[in-house]
Amino acid sequence: MRIIITGDHDESARRRIRAAAPAARIDFTADLNGIEHADAVVGHVPEALLARASRLRWVHSPAAGVDAILSDGLLAGDVTLTSATGNGAIPLAEHAMLLTLMLNRDVRRWSRAQEERRWDRFTHGELAGKTIGLYGLGHAGLDLAAKARAFHMRVLGMRRTAAPAPGVDELFGPDDFPRFLAESDFVIVTAPLTAATAGRFGREAFAAMKPTACFVCVSRGGIADDDALLDALRRGEIAGAGLDAHGVEPLPADSPFWTLPNVIVTPHNGATTRETARRGLDILVDNLERFARGAPLRNVVDKAAGY
Amino acid sequence: MRIIITGDHDESARRRIRAAAPAARIDFTADLNGIEHADAVVGHVPEALLARASRLRWVHSPAAGVDAILSDGLLAGDVTLTSATGNGAIPLAEHAMLLTLMLNRDVRRWSRAQEERRWDRFTHGELAGKTIGLYGLGHAGLDLAAKARAFHMRVLGMRRTAAPAPGVDELFGPDDFPRFLAESDFVIVTAPLTAATAGRFGREAFAAMKPTACFVCVSRGGIADDDALLDALRRGEIAGAGLDAHGVEPLPADSPFWTLPNVIVTPHNGATTRETARRGLDILVDNLERFARGAPLRNVVDKAAGY
Repeated sequence: MRIIITGDHDESARRRIRAAAPAARIDFTADLNGIEHADAVVGHVPEALLARASRLRWVHSPAAGVDAILSDGLLAGDVTLTSATGNGAIPLAEHAMLLTLMLNRDVRRWSRAQEERRWDRFTHGELAGKTIGLYGLGHAGLDLAAKARAFHMRVLGMRRTAAPAPGVDELFGPDDFPRFLAESDFVIVTAPLTAATAGRFGREAFAAMKPTACFVCVSRGGIADDDALLDALRRGEIAGAGLDAHGVEPLPADSPFWTLPNVIVTPHNGATTRETARRGLDILVDNLERFARGAPLRNVVDKAAGY
Repeated sequence: MRIIITGDHDESARRRIRAAAPAARIDFTADLNGIEHADAVVGHVPEALLARASRLRWVHSPAAGVDAILSDGLLAGDVTLTSATGNGAIPLAEHAMLLTLMLNRDVRRWSRAQEERRWDRFTHGELAGKTIGLYGLGHAGLDLAAKARAFHMRVLGMRRTAAPAPGVDELFGPDDFPRFLAESDFVIVTAPLTAATAGRFGREAFAAMKPTACFVCVSRGGIADDDALLDALRRGEIAGAGLDAHGVEPLPADSPFWTLPNVIVTPHNGATTRETARRGLDILVDNLERFARGAPLRNVVDKAAGY
């Protein structure tokens, strides 16, 4: 059994990985030259190489979102795809709460005042009693629901399936999108980028939101149409935005998002913690053990759904 | 019955106040010239006027903290003192969580990068698994305990009495102060300023904290010794501070706190929301009704305890 592992792994991580599949030959390498002999690859397999990968049975994504690696070839074939989904859910929910608090309290105004050593006291909002709408109820969305409830917020949730959603006060299906938007004071995108979510937040969506509401995205760019979002912010159709995920990354220096007064930009950085890396390694090691002994893998991607 | 009401109240607030005690003569006035005829005063009664206030039975503080109005004369006499305690607890807990998240994620670094349109991605902390130590478990402290728990934090609490503390994993008494400090990754002050808390955070306290820990104060300046806090921050005895309450307010333009890189300053502004004002008015109106019909008042200050 041969397994190719791309990406950075320090010696202690490599030891754990080797110990998970001691009978396998494991190559830590950035190139995929030996892919014709590989039973599994951890990382992105470019579409052009798939035809050569005749032994390939498993691809594991070290990222939670698989939008960037789910090629047509991988979709069509019978290679199993797994992901690190869940590894960054908690820090992502922390980041969403941070951006929500920063928008609600106009933290940029305090930051400017501190820069200028100015005592600038003003009346700001509080989250208690406000409505938060969670677009996506995966690991991050459900963790955020519990946090929002501790902030005494009304929690709306929207997702594809009708699975139970603890901590959510009202669950909306895709057909209820306009009402979900109209009732939310904060709309938080935690959903993956899929055929169903791409461009979902366009002109109509922002027009359906309250002019006092804010849009926060911590999962993937491309779910919002950035031109429509910019127009909505400039026209005051919505009150502000907190953006960790962007349509183009890194966000170009000439992007208007950097300088709009009611926008907080962070560099797709919400879940970048040592703990996220550790949890990602835990998932990979667990799946390597399962693969080595022929057991069912965890975190298997539903290719039709795209996550 | 005559009642003097100081402070700003718009016409709708005045209507509610008058309706609460329709038989009383209510004067909305900034001066206390008629204090010799007053049965009650809402606001601060200067010590020098107390001797003239022979009919005075009740003073209500529109602020939650009474440190600034609890004079020796008021302490010694039998005038009942009540406060708005609880009116700002929820937004104060929101503010404490905001400052904690900002320190844990080095938000100032992202703010500088946004200012310069720079994509500055870095590894930061996450709150899950960290320990938060709540110094003070009144309304704000207990609300913060529930929030911290939703952030998957271990919650330590410290207070004078051993009353039940829902959401707190371990309760410390005053004698356990050093261990409380040594175990906390974030120490959050929500306590009132009293004889027992004044200067409690001095050189010894900061030395007992972890060098990786942060100090957050959202209640009152003076609980921390600002010189000791400055030294601890400069020497790296603690990692950072989030300060809404300050020893001198407004914080002078030449205060070093404004410019220390690991400090977030806000202008005693954590609870300044419309909802706080509304809840404060609700408490005042309720107490006016009680006073008018001779019923026991709520939010009565324990003069010996100082809150």
